Amino acid sequence: MTQILEPPVDKAANPDPTVAAEGWFADFEAALRERDVHRAAAQFATQSFWRDLVAFSWNITTVEDRSGVEGLLTDTLERTDPSRFVLEEQATEEDGVITAWFVFETAVGRGRGLVRLREEEGRWRAWTFLTTLYELKGHEEPRGSRRPMGAEHGATKDRTTWTERREAEDASLGRTEQPYVLVVGGGQGGIALGARLRQLGVPSLVIDKYPRPGDQWRSRYKSLCLHDPVWYDHLPYLKFPDNWPVFAPKDKVGDWLESYTKVMEVPYWSSTVATSASFSEGTGRWTVEIEREGEALTLTPTHLVLATGMSGKPNVPVLPGQDVFRGEQQHSSQHPGPDAYRGKRVVVIGSNNSAFDICGALWEHDADVTMVQRSSTHIVKSESLMDIGLGDLYSERALAAGMTTEKADLVFASLPYRIMHEFQIPLYEQMKERDADFYARMEAAGFDLDWGDDGSGLFMKYLRRGSGYYIDVGAAELVADGEVKLAKGQVSHLTEDSVVLADGTELPADLVVYATGYGSMNGWAADLISQDVADRVGKVWGLGSDTTKDPGPWEGEQRNMWKPTQQPHLWFHGGNLHQSRHYSLYLALQLKARHVGIPTPVRGLQEVHHLS
Amino acid sequence: MTQILEPPVDKAANPDPTVAAEGWFADFEAALRERDVHRAAAQFATQSFWRDLVAFSWNITTVEDRSGVEGLLTDTLERTDPSRFVLEEQATEEDGVITAWFVFETAVGRGRGLVRLREEEGRWRAWTFLTTLYELKGHEEPRGSRRPMGAEHGATKDRTTWTERREAEDASLGRTEQPYVLVVGGGQGGIALGARLRQLGVPSLVIDKYPRPGDQWRSRYKSLCLHDPVWYDHLPYLKFPDNWPVFAPKDKVGDWLESYTKVMEVPYWSSTVATSASFSEGTGRWTVEIEREGEALTLTPTHLVLATGMSGKPNVPVLPGQDVFRGEQQHSSQHPGPDAYRGKRVVVIGSNNSAFDICGALWEHDADVTMVQRSSTHIVKSESLMDIGLGDLYSERALAAGMTTEKADLVFASLPYRIMHEFQIPLYEQMKERDADFYARMEAAGFDLDWGDDGSGLFMKYLRRGSGYYIDVGAAELVADGEVKLAKGQVSHLTEDSVVLADGTELPADLVVYATGYGSMNGWAADLISQDVADRVGKVWGLGSDTTKDPGPWEGEQRNMWKPTQQPHLWFHGGNLHQSRHYSLYLALQLKARHVGIPTPVRGLQEVHHLS
Repeated sequence: MTQILEPPVDKAANPDPTVAAEGWFADFEAALRERDVHRAAAQFATQSFWRDLVAFSWNITTVEDRSGVEGLLTDTLERTDPSRFVLEEQATEEDGVITAWFVFETAVGRGRGLVRLREEEGRWRAWTFLTTLYELKGHEEPRGSRRPMGAEHGATKDRTTWTERREAEDASLGRTEQPYVLVVGGGQGGIALGARLRQLGVPSLVIDKYPRPGDQWRSRYKSLCLHDPVWYDHLPYLKFPDNWPVFAPKDKVGDWLESYTKVMEVPYWSSTVATSASFSEGTGRWTVEIEREGEALTLTPTHLVLATGMSGKPNVPVLPGQDVFRGEQQHSSQHPGPDAYRGKRVVVIGSNNSAFDICGALWEHDADVTMVQRSSTHIVKSESLMDIGLGDLYSERALAAGMTTEKADLVFASLPYRIMHEFQIPLYEQMKERDADFYARMEAAGFDLDWGDDGSGLFMKYLRRGSGYYIDVGAAELVADGEVKLAKGQVSHLTEDSVVLADGTELPADLVVYATGYGSMNGWAADLISQDVADRVGKVWGLGSDTTKDPGPWEGEQRNMWKPTQQPHLWFHGGNLHQSRHYSLYLALQLKARHVGIPTPVRGLQEVHHLS
Repeated sequence: MTQILEPPVDKAANPDPTVAAEGWFADFEAALRERDVHRAAAQFATQSFWRDLVAFSWNITTVEDRSGVEGLLTDTLERTDPSRFVLEEQATEEDGVITAWFVFETAVGRGRGLVRLREEEGRWRAWTFLTTLYELKGHEEPRGSRRPMGAEHGATKDRTTWTERREAEDASLGRTEQPYVLVVGGGQGGIALGARLRQLGVPSLVIDKYPRPGDQWRSRYKSLCLHDPVWYDHLPYLKFPDNWPVFAPKDKVGDWLESYTKVMEVPYWSSTVATSASFSEGTGRWTVEIEREGEALTLTPTHLVLATGMSGKPNVPVLPGQDVFRGEQQHSSQHPGPDAYRGKRVVVIGSNNSAFDICGALWEHDADVTMVQRSSTHIVKSESLMDIGLGDLYSERALAAGMTTEKADLVFASLPYRIMHEFQIPLYEQMKERDADFYARMEAAGFDLDWGDDGSGLFMKYLRRGSGYYIDVGAAELVADGEVKLAKGQVSHLTEDSVVLADGTELPADLVVYATGYGSMNGWAADLISQDVADRVGKVWGLGSDTTKDPGPWEGEQRNMWKPTQQPHLWFHGGNLHQSRHYSLYLALQLKARHVGIPTPVRGLQEVHHLS
């Protein structure tokens, strides 16, 4: 069965990038059609990456090099039956790399992708290859030309109105009709997923402990604004209007989420908590006990999604003396803002985003503030991050250049995690240079700075560990100036009226704020389901980069996020607004396929290496 | 001072439409620069129309032919100082007409327009010319690259949050701070205008009698859906998402308006009625007495906008016997829907949109329904109207062809009202042919049909009189089938249990619904201000086409809408969602200019010919 290895497209003979890309796809598709995985893999470069979001693997997964491609195709080609690879627009070439947007079909769906071709041995070969599923055949979303009519024309006895149907649905949901998917947590993640599932016609319910959608933001400290800019933050289907602030205040975000939930008709129960959940292999369904405004109910969904958030489970250190301290103690998530603390002595333990935000607002309201830095922090100035880190993909400039949010999401998704740091390092070197004065002042003030283990900066820290940085909007200067006092080291204990560090330094305090971050998301599974299930699922988040707080082995994707886990029918969803928008699509399609009985054999189910 | 009349662009020498259009503008702008109004007017065709939305005239006005152009320029050229006419995209030619989109500047603002050139004497001359103002220099809206930052970077003592500023604004508005503009009526018109004024930084307040924004729709009969399709219905700034129904149910529209009001931060007082208003020439301000949730307050705005709606002031005929009738009587605006009337005998007086909608829903719920037709009705099938009447401008197909809502609005605005019926007549002839069977069935059932006085159909009826038609979504077939009984003629009187027609026909009734339309909008001014002011303003709406219910003389624009009236500082705003969206821009710019003290000499203030 040895095939003759036909060479990929000749570079010299194909100077036009579009012709070259079309040639590459013709060869690739022919190899796929003939089920010749070896030949198809030969279209890839020696070092190459194929990232697949659900289209081939029913998983979120990246394979590397020809051997990885061959393995992926061997397992998935026959049932995926990919075809009709067509360029969506003219390909472009820059620095010897051809970039081409394409669409394709599989046996069950339609996909979109982005390929980068590089010359190798005089031939164009795929260096990075992204394939994403965007819809299932026969289950296309009712949008655009498929949108609902609304008014049903004609005359029909006893027709019901939209309102009557919504009311009937509300009355039956969770009582006579069970949701197929229960989403626990109604922040941006749960809401975005709820909107997508609604669009796809998957019976779902989003529950949240707060009284109103958006309260997840409203309840935070009053000075909080988004640290990510508007272009990065759109939800699916309904973009922020173009008068929306670059960095939206938290209450405005809350109002938007509440309006969005209503407009998108997301089935959403407020003031509802899940108290326990267990999965029955026999029935293939969960039993979830909930309390809705005090009323106990039992739900039996087929799938359970924990969208309770990366920043949902406060991590409060246990310290001697916490019980004798006479002042107030709060986790940063409980901090109400500065108003009550004018003239008070406040010790903020931690030196990342929340710590800086809280210290800044307290200083602005004339509190006496000390920040305790326990380990180094990565700081970038917001303006520099926007210009250098995000500007090509998410900015007014990017929009003007035709880089829509949807395209930007796919460009971002197309960069393999394995080599992403290589693209990031030079950007942060630029920022370091641009803001050299600022960094010098911070160091002169004794503040410990870092740039990530390998100098790759903020995004990599976010993807690897979800912590360890501050996007400076002004509070760092207060530390540099000494307006906010800086203390360093581990906390030893609390006394009646102070925080004492390991070196004996005593910091008098009326209020202690623990800006000490959040625990792994599988802690939610432990609380709600069982420690056993949490351990089966293992650590959530991180890439396995073997850097600080992101232990190996290399996983190559965010652990357990938006994809099948070792606990059947249990899913994790979350992240920032960008991730909530983008990955909710792939999670929703996975759930939709299961709901309508499309086979979804998972290729490369993630293994568990760490409990949390 | 006689100028040599230089000829406009030669047709034969300029076969490319873009080159021809650029040449036309070069000549036109040169003439304007030299203040040579005669030469500028010579660029226009013998029969020609210049429609100006605020840019030149500080009015909404159309002038005709070279003499009209010369008159407009004589009055406005010096202070307008127009310049920088530049094509926005390639011009196109079809059927001997060149169409070109352009932008331009005036002394105080920036505009956009659409010109159609026709050959006359071998030269390209302007046949239709639309000029619109879209922003004032130095007062550009904070959108896109001018959007607000939201988070204010840096550290500032006692900074306030967005929420605190909103709360302070709410607390002072109407008490220590007076709105510059008071908008009475918070339906789509008031809300759209409120959003634009907010964006432009004009201190404003929208008040409405209902408890919540959107209740204007929610309170209508339960089967109501929009009769206009979604592409025609967007509000400014925030478009409906692409899953929005073609014909949205009324409660969904209500929810959208409520969300929109919140998201766009429109200053809006619910449960508030204005009880009286008077204008002081001395202070240049209104004194408006209002009741807000029972509390009496006095507002002193500089401008008063009545956005109480074309369909806001019920027109109920006075009939003998209304006092002895034992059943229920309702104006269509009060009709709750069919549920309570199963098995009841209902007489619906009227045969336009509301009458058909209400009859259809009552029949669906097994009422015994009779429609009383008093005069002929124009009926078009919804599908035909969408395909033939709107499809080129407002549809999924139009969008796919690059016809955005904003462009469609300007195309629509560019068609002079004087000749619009000429474009409309052939469309309705197509509809008549397409649905010939349906019309034959209606006539066989005895229903009196019309197509407008001159066969120009629905849009012209709407623009001329705002009444006299039904967009059929199914209920007409019930009349054709006899399922809804048809009676014809004027109503003579009511008895204890019936409606009696002029010919003696007695229609037994448990419920009488008066689907008898609405009064002229200056009735609102009479109620709120005085009959004297209402008479000074005169009839609102209509073009002066000298057709049924639209008496002449020819006005050429909708009377008193969105432009200065004979009562200084009093404005009318309203219409369907399309008009609320589009004309709110020009009304807002007129108000903004006055707020910041830009001179706004009105050219061609409308004269009054009819009291109502």
